[in-house]
Amino acid sequence: MTAAPPRFEQVRHRMREIGVDVMLLSHGADLPWLTGYRAMPLERLTLLVLPAEGEPELLVPALEAARVPDPHGAFSVRPWMDTEDPIELAATSISRTDQAGGRSGLSVAISDRAWAVSLLGLQHRLATATWSPVSVVTGPLRARKDAHELAALRAAAAAADRVAAQLQAGDLALLGRSEADVSADIARRLVAEGHQRVNFAIVGSGPNGASPHHEPGPRTIAAGDVVVCDFGGTLAPAHDGADHTGVGYCSDITRTVVVGRPDPQILDYYAVLHAAQQAGFEAARAGVAAGDVDTACRRVIAEAGLGQWFIHRTGHGIGIDEHEDPYIVAGNTDVLLQGHVFSIEPGIYLPGCFGMRLEDIVVVGPDSPERLNTADRRLVELDA
Amino acid sequence: MTAAPPRFEQVRHRMREIGVDVMLLSHGADLPWLTGYRAMPLERLTLLVLPAEGEPELLVPALEAARVPDPHGAFSVRPWMDTEDPIELAATSISRTDQAGGRSGLSVAISDRAWAVSLLGLQHRLATATWSPVSVVTGPLRARKDAHELAALRAAAAAADRVAAQLQAGDLALLGRSEADVSADIARRLVAEGHQRVNFAIVGSGPNGASPHHEPGPRTIAAGDVVVCDFGGTLAPAHDGADHTGVGYCSDITRTVVVGRPDPQILDYYAVLHAAQQAGFEAARAGVAAGDVDTACRRVIAEAGLGQWFIHRTGHGIGIDEHEDPYIVAGNTDVLLQGHVFSIEPGIYLPGCFGMRLEDIVVVGPDSPERLNTADRRLVELDA
Repeated sequence: MTAAPPRFEQVRHRMREIGVDVMLLSHGADLPWLTGYRAMPLERLTLLVLPAEGEPELLVPALEAARVPDPHGAFSVRPWMDTEDPIELAATSISRTDQAGGRSGLSVAISDRAWAVSLLGLQHRLATATWSPVSVVTGPLRARKDAHELAALRAAAAAADRVAAQLQAGDLALLGRSEADVSADIARRLVAEGHQRVNFAIVGSGPNGASPHHEPGPRTIAAGDVVVCDFGGTLAPAHDGADHTGVGYCSDITRTVVVGRPDPQILDYYAVLHAAQQAGFEAARAGVAAGDVDTACRRVIAEAGLGQWFIHRTGHGIGIDEHEDPYIVAGNTDVLLQGHVFSIEPGIYLPGCFGMRLEDIVVVGPDSPERLNTADRRLVELDA
Repeated sequence: MTAAPPRFEQVRHRMREIGVDVMLLSHGADLPWLTGYRAMPLERLTLLVLPAEGEPELLVPALEAARVPDPHGAFSVRPWMDTEDPIELAATSISRTDQAGGRSGLSVAISDRAWAVSLLGLQHRLATATWSPVSVVTGPLRARKDAHELAALRAAAAAADRVAAQLQAGDLALLGRSEADVSADIARRLVAEGHQRVNFAIVGSGPNGASPHHEPGPRTIAAGDVVVCDFGGTLAPAHDGADHTGVGYCSDITRTVVVGRPDPQILDYYAVLHAAQQAGFEAARAGVAAGDVDTACRRVIAEAGLGQWFIHRTGHGIGIDEHEDPYIVAGNTDVLLQGHVFSIEPGIYLPGCFGMRLEDIVVVGPDSPERLNTADRRLVELDA
């Protein structure tokens, strides 16, 4: 067994610190973050059993075993056949890590996004264990991005920026097209600019923009419409010799455009939105509580008398997952640190009328915050 | 409150039958199957709280509330704000359904694919409840497809068949292209033929085909290669006035092709594979145990002396989920019924050499099984 990779050491250190005996990684970003391998989003159980002390074992469906990259001794691989019960195998593997020998109250942390059916099966077989979500271990570690991750997020943001620039340059010809059509066009462009996968391409026009997660539909975009475009995907960085090069990182950007000359009221609201996003950006410094960024951003909108129309949190962390720690939401006392990366995306939504949102991905730097997105933040007017 | 839709009645009937007090639907196919609404695959909790007796309530993130279709009185909608704790709201809603008034041992079933972090939060707040995966309620109900669902699965299969026919006609020009390129081409064609979403497009050429879930990569397809192509997506049927028209159903097909003249050994193996798939198909009748279809299929391969190279189960149910009940796997004693729909997909995999797989979606009919896929099942030779 060669020396464990640095992230394994970080994880084990934190497990001992907070008293977690075994970590179980299944669906979600923790497993690829740690090992470079992502479980397929299907029902056959993939589970890395990682004890604070002792050898980790990856249970993997036999027909997927060939996809596991060489673990270089960091863990062993145990393929299981369709005729075996993976929950039984997992319970055995977990029990084996219990060095105190069947003591009660083994503390087990499991992937936040593991399926409930897997957790229930494991709880049934390990009746005396106590359970917690694995983010108590990995959340703070994953939130601070290293140089490779920052490069990956920068590349993803740049690819999304290129699509935003095409949108703002009028290349997508919004007028007279359906939202669904424009959404498909944005999706194609995200792939053309290097994304492996499109995660979403929200196009909310006119009154539909007032639904922040609007599903693009048949509505035809008309002159005078304000159009919220919020899109992102996953981009795997070019091979650079590092351990985790196969793992993609997410982009996420929102730009609002208007078809033709906007109503003066729209311009006034947008000026508030723009100032709010800037205030959030300026507040995003190391040592500040995550909730204070939300407060700074929200205050600008509230002081303009529009507080009731900003109906969601200010932002979310981003990395291998589209949404992850740190969450920029009122009451979150987690302190921002250098290397935290998250969205700042205030919005103003008038039901039945229109919506607008402005979103950049921001990284907390040693001195000041930095935007990873550089597309024009103004309300761009497209030809009508 | 108007009369509840038929699927609500089916579900409540089965809950009472097996003694489940409350059903909680979050991520996965159960919620859209029941309500036409799918939770976004993100961290904000969506949860339908459905008691065996009493009014169901859908907790939904406020910014997604506008996406919920009119429930026509089948349930009420409770949007929650980012500053509220949805687990707390859910626990309150669940406790309210406890008509016996705080009695211990409330029996709660939760979506198999709900996130572990949600389940752990709920277990913490409802310490005396007993938990089970919701498939104990919904699995048998969802497995039997009604006429609308069969039409949707038929349309999805036909769309995938058109892509398979293009592959077999040589439209994709495999020779000299990378697997990743061909995979992207298949994905584009799945969308062009009507799929809303591509779920996977496996292209395993030459020795890569021996890994059943091979990730298409840079390998260039050469003359003589056997190439396994396994692809599918989700297709929402055209609006037909039914309740669940927004919900997509999955396609899933595998065809193996060969570039140029195959080695005689390949032809021999493929004849075995073809016969095995036919044997599985013929066994797929109402009243037969699911495991017996696996046995029928596997026997043909085993009798040819190739049993050790068929390393996975014979198939899986398909519907809103890519994989769902019934699973066609050794030991599954669940009895097949009219309206069950699943894949029959034997494979033969020689590590380091090649792989081959043949997959159709099959429906159990009143008298005999029916294939939903009709693309040529022979080993088609492409020009080299």
